[in-house]
Amino acid sequence: MPASNYYLEHWMDEIHLHGVKKTVVSTQTKYQKIDIVDTSNYGRCLFLDERMQSSEKDSFIYHEALVHPPLLLHPDPKKVMIVGGGEGETLRDILKHKSVKQAVMVDIDKQLVDFCRKELPEWAGGAFTDKRSKVLYMDARTYLEKSKEKFDVIIIDLTEPIEGGPSFKLYTREFYQLLHSRLTEHGIITLQAGTTRVHDTDMLTSIAKTIACAFPVVNIYQVIIPSFGLPWGFIMGSKTYDPLTYSPAQIDHLIRKRGLKKLEFYDGITHLGMFCLPKFLRRDFEKQQRVITDQKLMTAKFA
Amino acid sequence: MPASNYYLEHWMDEIHLHGVKKTVVSTQTKYQKIDIVDTSNYGRCLFLDERMQSSEKDSFIYHEALVHPPLLLHPDPKKVMIVGGGEGETLRDILKHKSVKQAVMVDIDKQLVDFCRKELPEWAGGAFTDKRSKVLYMDARTYLEKSKEKFDVIIIDLTEPIEGGPSFKLYTREFYQLLHSRLTEHGIITLQAGTTRVHDTDMLTSIAKTIACAFPVVNIYQVIIPSFGLPWGFIMGSKTYDPLTYSPAQIDHLIRKRGLKKLEFYDGITHLGMFCLPKFLRRDFEKQQRVITDQKLMTAKFA
Amino acid sequence: MPASNYYLEHWMDEIHLHGVKKTVVSTQTKYQKIDIVDTSNYGRCLFLDERMQSSEKDSFIYHEALVHPPLLLHPDPKKVMIVGGGEGETLRDILKHKSVKQAVMVDIDKQLVDFCRKELPEWAGGAFTDKRSKVLYMDARTYLEKSKEKFDVIIIDLTEPIEGGPSFKLYTREFYQLLHSRLTEHGIITLQAGTTRVHDTDMLTSIAKTIACAFPVVNIYQVIIPSFGLPWGFIMGSKTYDPLTYSPAQIDHLIRKRGLKKLEFYDGITHLGMFCLPKFLRRDFEKQQRVITDQKLMTAKFA
Amino acid sequence: MPASNYYLEHWMDEIHLHGVKKTVVSTQTKYQKIDIVDTSNYGRCLFLDERMQSSEKDSFIYHEALVHPPLLLHPDPKKVMIVGGGEGETLRDILKHKSVKQAVMVDIDKQLVDFCRKELPEWAGGAFTDKRSKVLYMDARTYLEKSKEKFDVIIIDLTEPIEGGPSFKLYTREFYQLLHSRLTEHGIITLQAGTTRVHDTDMLTSIAKTIACAFPVVNIYQVIIPSFGLPWGFIMGSKTYDPLTYSPAQIDHLIRKRGLKKLEFYDGITHLGMFCLPKFLRRDFEKQQRVITDQKLMTAKFA
Repeated sequence: MPASNYYLEHWMDEIHLHGVKKTVVSTQTKYQKIDIVDTSNYGRCLFLDERMQSSEKDSFIYHEALVHPPLLLHPDPKKVMIVGGGEGETLRDILKHKSVKQAVMVDIDKQLVDFCRKELPEWAGGAFTDKRSKVLYMDARTYLEKSKEKFDVIIIDLTEPIEGGPSFKLYTREFYQLLHSRLTEHGIITLQAGTTRVHDTDMLTSIAKTIACAFPVVNIYQVIIPSFGLPWGFIMGSKTYDPLTYSPAQIDHLIRKRGLKKLEFYDGITHLGMFCLPKFLRRDFEKQQRVITDQKLMTAKFA
Repeated sequence: MPASNYYLEHWMDEIHLHGVKKTVVSTQTKYQKIDIVDTSNYGRCLFLDERMQSSEKDSFIYHEALVHPPLLLHPDPKKVMIVGGGEGETLRDILKHKSVKQAVMVDIDKQLVDFCRKELPEWAGGAFTDKRSKVLYMDARTYLEKSKEKFDVIIIDLTEPIEGGPSFKLYTREFYQLLHSRLTEHGIITLQAGTTRVHDTDMLTSIAKTIACAFPVVNIYQVIIPSFGLPWGFIMGSKTYDPLTYSPAQIDHLIRKRGLKKLEFYDGITHLGMFCLPKFLRRDFEKQQRVITDQKLMTAKFA
Repeated sequence: MPASNYYLEHWMDEIHLHGVKKTVVSTQTKYQKIDIVDTSNYGRCLFLDERMQSSEKDSFIYHEALVHPPLLLHPDPKKVMIVGGGEGETLRDILKHKSVKQAVMVDIDKQLVDFCRKELPEWAGGAFTDKRSKVLYMDARTYLEKSKEKFDVIIIDLTEPIEGGPSFKLYTREFYQLLHSRLTEHGIITLQAGTTRVHDTDMLTSIAKTIACAFPVVNIYQVIIPSFGLPWGFIMGSKTYDPLTYSPAQIDHLIRKRGLKKLEFYDGITHLGMFCLPKFLRRDFEKQQRVITDQKLMTAKFA
Repeated sequence: MPASNYYLEHWMDEIHLHGVKKTVVSTQTKYQKIDIVDTSNYGRCLFLDERMQSSEKDSFIYHEALVHPPLLLHPDPKKVMIVGGGEGETLRDILKHKSVKQAVMVDIDKQLVDFCRKELPEWAGGAFTDKRSKVLYMDARTYLEKSKEKFDVIIIDLTEPIEGGPSFKLYTREFYQLLHSRLTEHGIITLQAGTTRVHDTDMLTSIAKTIACAFPVVNIYQVIIPSFGLPWGFIMGSKTYDPLTYSPAQIDHLIRKRGLKKLEFYDGITHLGMFCLPKFLRRDFEKQQRVITDQKLMTAKFA
């Protein structure tokens, strides 16, 4: 056993110990616990409330999967919003799209963003100082309720809904209806929404069903971010365009046309692979009846 | 933390503790350490040499992915061999194909098979007593070298190549050439071959490159078996048929035609999804140069 | 790392994993969680509410330290009571004293005693069927309140006071006053009362101070039971006799006179050693002001 | 579970995870692995080769027990040697004795001492810059073989004998005979020598038997340093004076006479308590036959 320092994650009777080379930050903000840790297997990692959020080695997978599908499917994304967005990687990937004139990131936790800018500066790669970026520190739902701004794409980059956590009320039908009303004609949203582990898909499929109350086209897609320890589900809600109708060649054509370079994970074949879900997951989605509302919230189960 | 008993797996600076309800078997055979454990999250699990092999909750994914693609792609599989096969689930899934007249399973470890038949009888589901089954306890390579039998499909269901372990010499060019010579005209092999974790694909792609020395059509495919903790790679080596050329509709047609019922994981869309690899994995495979030979073996790195 | 199965104990930011060979019992009674586990280092162990209580390898230390000092110091112990006593080892050690005519054990948890009699029969060594034994299943405090019986020695063999746990109200001034009133002229009590770890002696010294409200002679003594992971404190409350006034030779003489055989831990020198506390512990006891009452209970801190 | 970072120690099928607030140093010198870690329960801790050596909260116990008994028993200790001594606490405690004119510390690992002086400066408390201190970086055995210096007390403050570790050849009969020859008329040595855990005393009693080949008066004493997780054995080898013949009042008188102040652990009663061993440990020592020699070394068993 080479390591002597470990970072401990646990969820429902499982404990995962990550070998640690160095602890960079370990602190509590007004909203959440932040740990930035250099691990043996995943390089520098960001944990929020003791859950892996991003790792140096594989966070590119998370962000390419979250950002590029909606921006490519939208015919001309000019204005993009990020709900959450913490360490700035989502912002960075959005700004790779030259059509984008403005990217508004609304994260409730300024201390988190400040720590990330200090300790993980290369993760955002200059995105925070890009002229097209606008970063606000407030509750994203309040922001959207008060503003009449419209966006072409809204990317939801949040932690899971833990009771009392900062993201608890950002997974409801009312919130998705609000998002729909703040999107332009062909508007699209994406988000991460919990594990796709077999027999454990209740949260993911409930969120997808909830989004279907507001959006006509809803697709779950599955992405493997190894540092998460479990396979992960993302959801796209769309007013018009359907990701299942694009061939690998079409996606690759769009990538070239938009001038996207240096993608490591995402291309046409990856797109097809991640939207082709295993049979049980499609069935679980079909059978799911639950809709999450402001009155009937859902809580991620870890313990 | 609800559990007080845990089963510990570790690999390269990571420790995974599975909550345990009951330990059913914990013993050492001539070839390997066997643990059969009732876990909180995955039900009854089989560990060989302290590595998760099969779990009640998700082993159907592993076996459907290993067995049905080669048997469906082959136009008329009558004779099938299993190299390894331990607990009998691979045998069970092969026998679901009515075209199959004989399934020969050659596993070196009789004690393992006996423990599984006793403690996990429902896993094999009657396969061991099916008239079409023939189970031999010996080294599969020796068996193939001495025999002149030919098979339509050979399924390799082994643990990873650990030095001194029972599978160490069953991942070499010479072994794959032997398999090729024991297959009929349109013969196909499949096997599991290590993780697809990003930056950690060396074993998988080396094995795939090695198989390419013997087979004209070689495809890696990616399968998520959550209890493994990491995404997993499988390989198909084929004399004729290419899994990438089949549409979901064609696969679904074959499933119906062959009368396969109650598949939970595999169907046409699943097939497409698992053969559409992420971009970095296709690149790693292209760049891989290593060929494993009897003289230059490769060892799985866990510690 | 030879073991793959572990039993997890945790307290205040520390986790202790005991290598496990076999789990014998893991169940929940009306009062507490019971685990009987065969560990690598301590043999068969009994855990209550996930805290080590007794181990095959070192529980003789606990029981010799708890039982023999009060019974030897008392000039003629005929009637002895056990408050708690679960697995029966305290009963067994009391019955080694031939002067004892009756030993009354009052444990609230019949299921616990039944499991111990079934799975750990050699621990009690015939004590439960000894004619001098009387075992009652009820709350010991209620028993003492309703009865007018008097005892020469009362041995308190309980788990620590956890809120809602079975022992919560058996550590108060009122309870010790009740005990005092149920003891004969030279009556003595002993009990275990928490760790003696430096900077962590608050519970132990509070309990000792509380006992001093009822008994004129109160002494803490320190015992090492390695399986507990921390050094442990016991307390003797006495109406007359003071353990500090006995020389090793006097204790050894009493042991011979009473015909006690096969003691492995306790003798005159051991007696002297365990009552000679380290300087900081004597100071902590002097400074302690807290008295635990029915109105102001104290809770063991584990987490 | 409040902590998310842990330091892992393991020995023979047990794993101990210490909650960590901050990792201060984690490095490898020419001789050993050094970790300096701020733990939840023991404050700042020094680990060598992944074994707890000293903690902020309880290392005073270790050092008071190692240093003051031999210096008080010696009638006039002027010249003292430390074999090992790393972080400087032993040196600090020796210099509290005003009779001491020179303290020579010989530690093989200069990098270790430098790290400790930088990261744990208050531990040595100015001892390294005291005019009476002489610190040499070399193998202590070589130093003693080449020198003809004589000392009144030699304190051995080493890690346990791990094969290939820096202390491996400093536990043999030949080494203790060398020490004897370098001591003045009433010379005394002390050292830590492994756990006193029941059934696990083989190393301690073997070392004590080995010392008995060179010294007429040999006593094991037992000290509880809670951060070690197990009770610990020390040994005193003496040419003349016997610690068992001193009463608490005599020790307290010597402490006052020598002007020792601010002792937290050690005084007359503590002295008596730690030399009064439990019965089984005295028996194990009596029965022990093994003598460790340069030809027949002994290795600490951790795994």
